[in-house]
Amino acid sequence: MHFSIISVVPELLESPLGHSMIRRARDRGLLEIECVDLRTFGLGAYRQVDDYPYGGGAGMVLMAEPLVNCIENLKRQRTYDEIIYLTPDGKRFDQPMANRLSLNLNLMLICGHYKGIDQRVRDHWVSLEVSMGDYVLSGGEIAACALVDAVGRLIPGVLNDETSALSDSFQDGLLAPPVYTRPAEFRGFPVPGILLSGHQARIDEWRHEQALQRTAERRPDILGD
Amino acid sequence: MHFSIISVVPELLESPLGHSMIRRARDRGLLEIECVDLRTFGLGAYRQVDDYPYGGGAGMVLMAEPLVNCIENLKRQRTYDEIIYLTPDGKRFDQPMANRLSLNLNLMLICGHYKGIDQRVRDHWVSLEVSMGDYVLSGGEIAACALVDAVGRLIPGVLNDETSALSDSFQDGLLAPPVYTRPAEFRGFPVPGILLSGHQARIDEWRHEQALQRTAERRPDILGD
Repeated sequence: MHFSIISVVPELLESPLGHSMIRRARDRGLLEIECVDLRTFGLGAYRQVDDYPYGGGAGMVLMAEPLVNCIENLKRQRTYDEIIYLTPDGKRFDQPMANRLSLNLNLMLICGHYKGIDQRVRDHWVSLEVSMGDYVLSGGEIAACALVDAVGRLIPGVLNDETSALSDSFQDGLLAPPVYTRPAEFRGFPVPGILLSGHQARIDEWRHEQALQRTAERRPDILGD
Repeated sequence: MHFSIISVVPELLESPLGHSMIRRARDRGLLEIECVDLRTFGLGAYRQVDDYPYGGGAGMVLMAEPLVNCIENLKRQRTYDEIIYLTPDGKRFDQPMANRLSLNLNLMLICGHYKGIDQRVRDHWVSLEVSMGDYVLSGGEIAACALVDAVGRLIPGVLNDETSALSDSFQDGLLAPPVYTRPAEFRGFPVPGILLSGHQARIDEWRHEQALQRTAERRPDILGD
């Protein structure tokens, strides 16, 4: 799977996409990530990429021309399944969307910065607007890393143990049950006895009950989906 | 404001917290960020921090002992307003939570990895569980960066123009209106005429209508909050 990420601060993307799971997936050829510096397409001697908003107000806006030139340059090299703009007013990213996107071959991600990108690019060049949550970040870079991580880990072979992602929160419409590891007692707090019993069927049942209970307490809104 | 971030892969945190807005805020002393490598508190010659889950199943679990030793070591150095565990089954982070957290002095963030942390740490040492969205990441590091960014930018002086954050999506219960910058026409697509009119009162009115309309179309659930 290939990601092309457009950013004015591509150095922000380096470490989250260069270590741990993502790094291993890239090394093994399961994930290809290309970070494109929008300034390469900047206008004039100063490589301008942003300008003041029409109508006044705070913050700068990423200009249409460098961004569209960058998008078109990328599109000449491959066919993208989606051209995604990361923005807090987009469709909220969730596990079903992660599952769906993980089936694609090529995704382009556009990171906004400052007040965002010129609306005309959103109207005519972007195919999907995605929000990582109801909060505002200083740019789309951290959001892009979150999307690449959430989608990338679903690609077969990226996680060491493939059953691992299936027992995650949201994969079966429930939050995950509590987990414990050694020691059996820590500072006077014991592990639930059932987990030490060795009865796998009863353990599985207990975990399912715990997942149901936790979901009912914390996220009744997702129950019954 | 001070953040202490506990992680088993602290190198993931480097670039998002080392450039752009966050870097400037750190340089100017507005934001202090300390990344703590959990392995420093690992057990034995191999600095063990994780182990297999009781009751079987996929994935590893971060052990209670190294994590609690790390938390207690940090608590000896300062008083934390919250000890936050980043987990998809936590309370969903949103702009009101960002605003609230930005008033704190010291926050500790715990990044899970693999299947998560021993439940006993969550039950007895963590004060707040926070989710950045309804999706699963390979670790809490990117989530921690998102939280630091969303909260950090609200600290007075961090953004160049303080009015900037006030016009963001969610700050007034609405999504932000569209933004445009030069040129007035791009590839045949013009900027809405009102923005070129110079009538600030009418521009403000148009923006408010656009924000209302966009919110009604995309996020009717947040209208009327």
